[in-house]
Amino acid sequence: MTYCVAMKLDHGLVYLSDTRTNAGVDNISTVTKMRSWDVPGERTITLLSAGNLATTQAVVSWLDERNKTPGERAPSILAAPTMFEVARIVGDTLATEVAARSQTPGQTMDAAFAGTLILGGQIKGADPRLYLIYPEGNFIEATEDNPFFQIGEAKYGKPILIRAFEAAMDFRDAVRLMLVSMDSTVRANLSVAPPFNLRYVKDGEFTATHERRIEGDDPYFRTLSEGWGEALRKAIPTLPSYEG
Amino acid sequence: MTYCVAMKLDHGLVYLSDTRTNAGVDNISTVTKMRSWDVPGERTITLLSAGNLATTQAVVSWLDERNKTPGERAPSILAAPTMFEVARIVGDTLATEVAARSQTPGQTMDAAFAGTLILGGQIKGADPRLYLIYPEGNFIEATEDNPFFQIGEAKYGKPILIRAFEAAMDFRDAVRLMLVSMDSTVRANLSVAPPFNLRYVKDGEFTATHERRIEGDDPYFRTLSEGWGEALRKAIPTLPSYEG
Repeated sequence: MTYCVAMKLDHGLVYLSDTRTNAGVDNISTVTKMRSWDVPGERTITLLSAGNLATTQAVVSWLDERNKTPGERAPSILAAPTMFEVARIVGDTLATEVAARSQTPGQTMDAAFAGTLILGGQIKGADPRLYLIYPEGNFIEATEDNPFFQIGEAKYGKPILIRAFEAAMDFRDAVRLMLVSMDSTVRANLSVAPPFNLRYVKDGEFTATHERRIEGDDPYFRTLSEGWGEALRKAIPTLPSYEG
Repeated sequence: MTYCVAMKLDHGLVYLSDTRTNAGVDNISTVTKMRSWDVPGERTITLLSAGNLATTQAVVSWLDERNKTPGERAPSILAAPTMFEVARIVGDTLATEVAARSQTPGQTMDAAFAGTLILGGQIKGADPRLYLIYPEGNFIEATEDNPFFQIGEAKYGKPILIRAFEAAMDFRDAVRLMLVSMDSTVRANLSVAPPFNLRYVKDGEFTATHERRIEGDDPYFRTLSEGWGEALRKAIPTLPSYEG
């Protein structure tokens, strides 16, 4: 599996993804699930992927192919006039790729080829947008009521996001919260693991404001992980005791 | 779905289950997923169930039928000499019931009829035992390394259990921790909801030491839920800030 999370903050979009991919527990490897396309000053697009790796890599390859020769292989995400159009192109590419695999004779398990994507970005003249794209190619957009998306092993890390997310958080607070959510997931599920990819794009900057890979032995991540365990253990006794 | 959790503590077994059952989101109702059989001074057995309600109710009915006329309808869980035997009987009953449904012509989806159970109890002369019973009827036992079991929507509430469980906790601390785990689940997933059933059986007491139903508007649960949200929000800023 995978765990990716993306947040729509008041001042920009921030993304975090793990890198573990596995076919069974005895066949694991490290693959980046975050891809980005930036045109400085004009547009920035980031894609996070979960699900069948062959499918999601094929989607990225198709998007890249079309970017290289946009005239011949339209539609290109670098030519689309709006993020909505970009989402439509990516969703259609995904649905087409999944459908193509599922039509192979003898293959009936659509779900095995499915992929789910988070797409975020901004095109000059419009606000940043964040979308969740389903395997069928349709998508929903992040709103004030629904300001973050998770894909892959989303359940472990969801409660803390529900409780602590605030759209007004600065980028450092958002990263800390995302890493806590990631840490809860990593501790509970073997199929999610470091290194992690982190990317922040501030509203109006059409390239990464901050971008890096966080290794498993990263001192900050280690401190955060230990500190969070300690904080949870300390928080429980502050709650009123059960007197039933 | 469902969320049930049971812990093997140094001094006894404690169980918590929700009561929501649903066939789609537009057809929900309240059903107890906790059943118990106590023979004062001799044995205590508690069963938590998740999965197909028809299957798990049928299992309980079969167990009850055999208890009423154990001579004719052996094996009875009230006559079994050990908890291991009880687990075997319950597992066999579950597997038989699931298999029977799955053999109906035109039905091939075994998974749709599957149920998963947590079985705990004690028979005089032996220690308390806790088992997780799979839909296939086989089972594993709780050990020091694996001191609690969850069934149903287990992921949301797992991180806090991993971090804060201690076998030496007293029963009130265990209940508080379980309710925090339950609260994280309820907040994130519509298919888990109060009221909750709570039961604690102390080692050597062959009946419930403490047993009650906790309603959604229970003042303690409300306080805990709000306090936990507050504690989490406060805990995050105590962690070191991201400086990347």
